[in-house]
Amino acid sequence: MSKSFVIKGNICQTITPSQLDLHEHAYAVCVDGVSEGVFDTLPQKYAHLPLYDYGDMLIFPGMVDLHIHAPQYAFRGMCMDLELMDWLNRYTFPEEEKYEDLAYAEKAYGIFVDALKKGATTRACIFATRHRYATELLMDLMEKSGLVSYVGKVNMDREASEALTEKNADISAYTTFGWINAVKDKYKNTLPILTPRFIPCCTDKLMEELREIQMAYGIPVQSHLSESKGEIEFVRFLRPDNEFYGDSYNEYDLFGKNDDINTDVKTVMAHCVWSSDEEVGLMRKNGVFVAHCPASNMNLTSGIAPIRKYLDLGLNIGLGTDIAGGHSESVFRAITDAIQVSKMYFRMVDESVRPLIFSEAFYLATMGGGAFFGKVGSFLPGYQFDAVVMDDSVLRHPQPLTLAERMERAVYLGLDEKNIAAKFVSGYNII
Amino acid sequence: MSKSFVIKGNICQTITPSQLDLHEHAYAVCVDGVSEGVFDTLPQKYAHLPLYDYGDMLIFPGMVDLHIHAPQYAFRGMCMDLELMDWLNRYTFPEEEKYEDLAYAEKAYGIFVDALKKGATTRACIFATRHRYATELLMDLMEKSGLVSYVGKVNMDREASEALTEKNADISAYTTFGWINAVKDKYKNTLPILTPRFIPCCTDKLMEELREIQMAYGIPVQSHLSESKGEIEFVRFLRPDNEFYGDSYNEYDLFGKNDDINTDVKTVMAHCVWSSDEEVGLMRKNGVFVAHCPASNMNLTSGIAPIRKYLDLGLNIGLGTDIAGGHSESVFRAITDAIQVSKMYFRMVDESVRPLIFSEAFYLATMGGGAFFGKVGSFLPGYQFDAVVMDDSVLRHPQPLTLAERMERAVYLGLDEKNIAAKFVSGYNII
Repeated sequence: MSKSFVIKGNICQTITPSQLDLHEHAYAVCVDGVSEGVFDTLPQKYAHLPLYDYGDMLIFPGMVDLHIHAPQYAFRGMCMDLELMDWLNRYTFPEEEKYEDLAYAEKAYGIFVDALKKGATTRACIFATRHRYATELLMDLMEKSGLVSYVGKVNMDREASEALTEKNADISAYTTFGWINAVKDKYKNTLPILTPRFIPCCTDKLMEELREIQMAYGIPVQSHLSESKGEIEFVRFLRPDNEFYGDSYNEYDLFGKNDDINTDVKTVMAHCVWSSDEEVGLMRKNGVFVAHCPASNMNLTSGIAPIRKYLDLGLNIGLGTDIAGGHSESVFRAITDAIQVSKMYFRMVDESVRPLIFSEAFYLATMGGGAFFGKVGSFLPGYQFDAVVMDDSVLRHPQPLTLAERMERAVYLGLDEKNIAAKFVSGYNII
Repeated sequence: MSKSFVIKGNICQTITPSQLDLHEHAYAVCVDGVSEGVFDTLPQKYAHLPLYDYGDMLIFPGMVDLHIHAPQYAFRGMCMDLELMDWLNRYTFPEEEKYEDLAYAEKAYGIFVDALKKGATTRACIFATRHRYATELLMDLMEKSGLVSYVGKVNMDREASEALTEKNADISAYTTFGWINAVKDKYKNTLPILTPRFIPCCTDKLMEELREIQMAYGIPVQSHLSESKGEIEFVRFLRPDNEFYGDSYNEYDLFGKNDDINTDVKTVMAHCVWSSDEEVGLMRKNGVFVAHCPASNMNLTSGIAPIRKYLDLGLNIGLGTDIAGGHSESVFRAITDAIQVSKMYFRMVDESVRPLIFSEAFYLATMGGGAFFGKVGSFLPGYQFDAVVMDDSVLRHPQPLTLAERMERAVYLGLDEKNIAAKFVSGYNII
């Protein structure tokens, strides 16, 4: 299929958080991979483009997953009776050690990439492991998939199993240089992202080296922040001079914009469940993205991030599935989880913080997280043409349904690979 | 398939809440629809029975759904931005009105029963609507499905839309008499259950009449209890003389055992999110079952039922999907939801109430709710032979997995109709 075309169907998007933007039997126009907008009647100037008519199907913008661990896909939905630090030590680190073995990595990452490709996700921020070559292998597979992603070789030089810990900061940095040089110009859709695992696993010296690497290459940053109480206590112990957890990334200029030195490091931090007002203030000032991962925060008994507060403050927020803290790679599931936990926060914690409504959570999964990738997450003119076409006819019903009802139902019931008729990323048809 | 046979596979059950009971490549023996137990080696005395070998598949006890509304299946996963009372008035009551029309009921209930049959549920407590003939139609369909169920024609003579409200208590009672007489001896697997919708929808006079009906026929009772704060306030207003909500069922002898008059009315109450200590004490004393419906309690912003406390007190507890407050009819999903909300209760509300672990939630979905149906929910000798055989090979993985891991993963990832190779109810093979 050419990168300039028209698709027709029931187009469902959120161009503001507060409401759905629905167009029945309408036209979405793609020219050179970029959206020209949605039209109820096809303008004459696009009449020469190929038209793909999806009948009564649903057309959504592609889903954006701001936080997912590729090597953890193998054990999703298992070992869920533990909290974060125990879960890392008992299950996660032993599994990630295996990625030293490229044959294992190829098998495991093959399964992961295949699942991501078949689902509704079009873009993702992905953690690999600390292993350079397995990370490159993952990037090769991601590139072949047609999805767009940032992929990070993880940096970690303390506080994990011996096999998974890099010997020291120099070796970690050296490996990271080698990796970035090897991949930075290799792919079209797969870009490197600096990935300190989290403060407990990174010595001060390593953080210092990562600052240098970031400045040398200008690549974005992803990590974890204020996920669980135990983790935060540990960070306080490890870095007593930092006022709050996020400050220990900021000290190394790995936390968004920094006006003092005139840098703007695109940064996404997963979780932010227990961020203090000061931390939230700095995230806001620096434009740091929050990757809200509600399923993971439930499964690991971390807590509930007060996303309504962050929305009201104008933070950048997207959703993450956080495989395997989260057990499903479906961003649809993350949408409904985000709504559900916000309702529990409202009811059980603070009734002044009203729950998310469906349109708001859908917005987070599309334009919210999409902003990390540029103009992504809608069919507004100038946006990357990412689309998922879904056949919801498998969901039988006795009554007529509105398009709004069908949209909500498709997300709640988690239409997935078996129901996706087509998927486009920057205008490329990858399913 | 005869009702006496042996099945072979990986048998996974919980015969106590605290641990899994796992048997690799073992034999479950069914004689006349009743389990003889699980054997690692097949005893000689069963060698003459037909043997069905399911290879490396998983064999679970059937799932028990203690609370589901059949007419609400049509709008599951929609209209989820409202709380209980608004949701009832704006979506639920208008949809339930349609069941006056038997053609509509046949279409809608056909879809519902088909979904239930194809999933992992083997037994259910079902709400129909207030319409007698549509309820009988649903019972016909349930009987044909081979599933075992209690089905209730709903009683409601106030506080709903005019079309859905029965004209008065006498008409409601009269219709209920007619319905019970028509169905009580008609089916093998489908039994009537008295179903006052909830106190807000039932006048005192109606409750009085339902007491008489219950005494006349000795049938069990299902209703709703202490689901949301607004509902509880309303009940307090309607029935100021009752000390707590449950007391208003108990006053009419529709709340479990009553030693004063030497009755034992098998009763299941959905939700119990906000039950007071007195209410919990009475449920315990009377042996009332709690149908814990975590998805619904999240979706309708009701709250989190403190199931750990109820377990510790020794209450009877099962799980309910509560379609369409809950959006999925999968009891597997209810298991994981129950674990997740218990983790949120622990973390956000009271850290002295430790979360449910996987085995406990699985137990609730099998032996916990199964007790409402008699000896149901395991392969222990003397239990009804309800089994679900699942092919989890669709879930690819690079590493070897233990049976415990496969069991947990199957539940978390919601293996469903597409993965069910066989299903038995009291020894009848219905899939």
